[in-house]
Amino acid sequence: MQDLSEFDLIEKLFAPLATAPGAFGLKDDVAMVAPRAGHDLVVTTDTIVESVDFFASDPPDTIARKALRVNLSDLVAKGAEPAAHLLTLMLPERIDRAFLESFVRGLASDQQTFGVTLLGGDMSATPGPLAISVTAFGYAPVGQLVKRGGARVGDLVYVTGSIGDSGAGLSLLKSNAQNAPSRLIGRYRVPEPRVGFAPAVRRASASIDVSDGLLADLGHIANASGVRIVVEAQRIPRSPELVAVWGDSEEAIVRAATAGDDYEIAFTASAPILGSAGVPVTGIGRVEAGTGVVLLDSESCEIAVPRAGFRHF
Amino acid sequence: MQDLSEFDLIEKLFAPLATAPGAFGLKDDVAMVAPRAGHDLVVTTDTIVESVDFFASDPPDTIARKALRVNLSDLVAKGAEPAAHLLTLMLPERIDRAFLESFVRGLASDQQTFGVTLLGGDMSATPGPLAISVTAFGYAPVGQLVKRGGARVGDLVYVTGSIGDSGAGLSLLKSNAQNAPSRLIGRYRVPEPRVGFAPAVRRASASIDVSDGLLADLGHIANASGVRIVVEAQRIPRSPELVAVWGDSEEAIVRAATAGDDYEIAFTASAPILGSAGVPVTGIGRVEAGTGVVLLDSESCEIAVPRAGFRHF
Repeated sequence: MQDLSEFDLIEKLFAPLATAPGAFGLKDDVAMVAPRAGHDLVVTTDTIVESVDFFASDPPDTIARKALRVNLSDLVAKGAEPAAHLLTLMLPERIDRAFLESFVRGLASDQQTFGVTLLGGDMSATPGPLAISVTAFGYAPVGQLVKRGGARVGDLVYVTGSIGDSGAGLSLLKSNAQNAPSRLIGRYRVPEPRVGFAPAVRRASASIDVSDGLLADLGHIANASGVRIVVEAQRIPRSPELVAVWGDSEEAIVRAATAGDDYEIAFTASAPILGSAGVPVTGIGRVEAGTGVVLLDSESCEIAVPRAGFRHF
Repeated sequence: MQDLSEFDLIEKLFAPLATAPGAFGLKDDVAMVAPRAGHDLVVTTDTIVESVDFFASDPPDTIARKALRVNLSDLVAKGAEPAAHLLTLMLPERIDRAFLESFVRGLASDQQTFGVTLLGGDMSATPGPLAISVTAFGYAPVGQLVKRGGARVGDLVYVTGSIGDSGAGLSLLKSNAQNAPSRLIGRYRVPEPRVGFAPAVRRASASIDVSDGLLADLGHIANASGVRIVVEAQRIPRSPELVAVWGDSEEAIVRAATAGDDYEIAFTASAPILGSAGVPVTGIGRVEAGTGVVLLDSESCEIAVPRAGFRHF
């Protein structure tokens, strides 16, 4: 970090990303978050850490995009429209200007894609791994935020997109697989938050984004709602690329449903919610009385799941 | 971290700190930030990293309090009243439940002292040092936020409290000084954000909290305001404990004025702003036409300052 000072970095690289009046051009110590008439202000924060959530060898622009996207995914899963973010960088010595230029290019591209702007942040040196913490702001129409606790007996269970691709991408990266399908690795490195689907999510009874793993995250809904969620294994949507790598066995389905990092939206609804805005939706189960999550095979027998999803600890 | 899961930690230790309705008891993925009538919503974020901003051997409750307080200081220096925060923890393997219990006790005590509540956050395992990132929210009466850029020629320059104590505390900790004055070390470990002084700050023309170092932070005001700031070295307020350790030489004054981590408020004003709410205020200089910051001795000769303050890079 000898080739550019903290103040120069902010002025040259990051200030151009901060176009909202409340960001004060990143020239002050605080920012102002504008209210939006008829809307609640929604906030979330998520951190990604090198060697835990991404690889040191990942392209810097993909690291920036992942840090932002995992946060946007949280907003969208609640029916909120993303608007702005704060960015905190913990930078080890090896990070140079070229790295940060690529990082900022990725961030700028995603800010444009998703209509969000940089409000402020913090930069700190660290003797440890690279870590990026984002706090994201969004707006939801007043009273329409969708929480985990609204699932009711009789609701159906849905998920957007496909499950397991990111987990397979991670496995491929870990095993240094040659000629690995780049779409799977791409989904691990740069998840696709379902931003266009936010208005549809508002009709869900409960919703969550799939980060820990499909079954673990549905478990959070079941727990918060005081219900039991039954998932039919064969209906869990999996991509052709995933099936080509992991196969089509029951074990492969369990692996996909517990891998995590999908950033799809899992939700319950009392009336069907169809795919929209280019986002496919698949019905995968139902809400019953009881507790927990159950995975059923094609003969309606329960499949044992050793570990529902990712835990940091 | 084998003795408690992430979900248990949130429920047992952190949820009791989250009393605002918008925190949803830390049971969801997002939080809502309530608007306050007649006020702007102000946000800031600051991270502290082990071995950079605190010592691994510091008591856990002081680490929590420092992480929160450096953020509250940023709000107060702008005239905003702190209200809530998001807390992100990056936890190395060695952190155990006892550590986190002490951490939470410190945080709970400070939340009560300063009238702030926990809105949400994130926990992540890290192979690196302990790091704590806080995003703090506050409210300022509409249009009354005090920025860096408002200093005008003819304004006077003020600072709250005393300067250099924290820097001396850090030196003492680094040199393992026996019988060191605990007040100096205390100011390094647990800074005192001048929360009661926020209403007075709103009459300042420009303001900043002293984190990088008094001269460096006044330099930020000079730069943003397009003015020159002249500081009289002998008027910089220093505590008896500091003078006892560092002495009263010109060199000692320069050292205090560049040490940083004071979390006092340095500000400019066109009419005198007196101490209030138990916070002493000292006039230390004036605003002139020109650029930069100048430190003068008792004969009005410029004192050479090799390095105005702390930089991460």
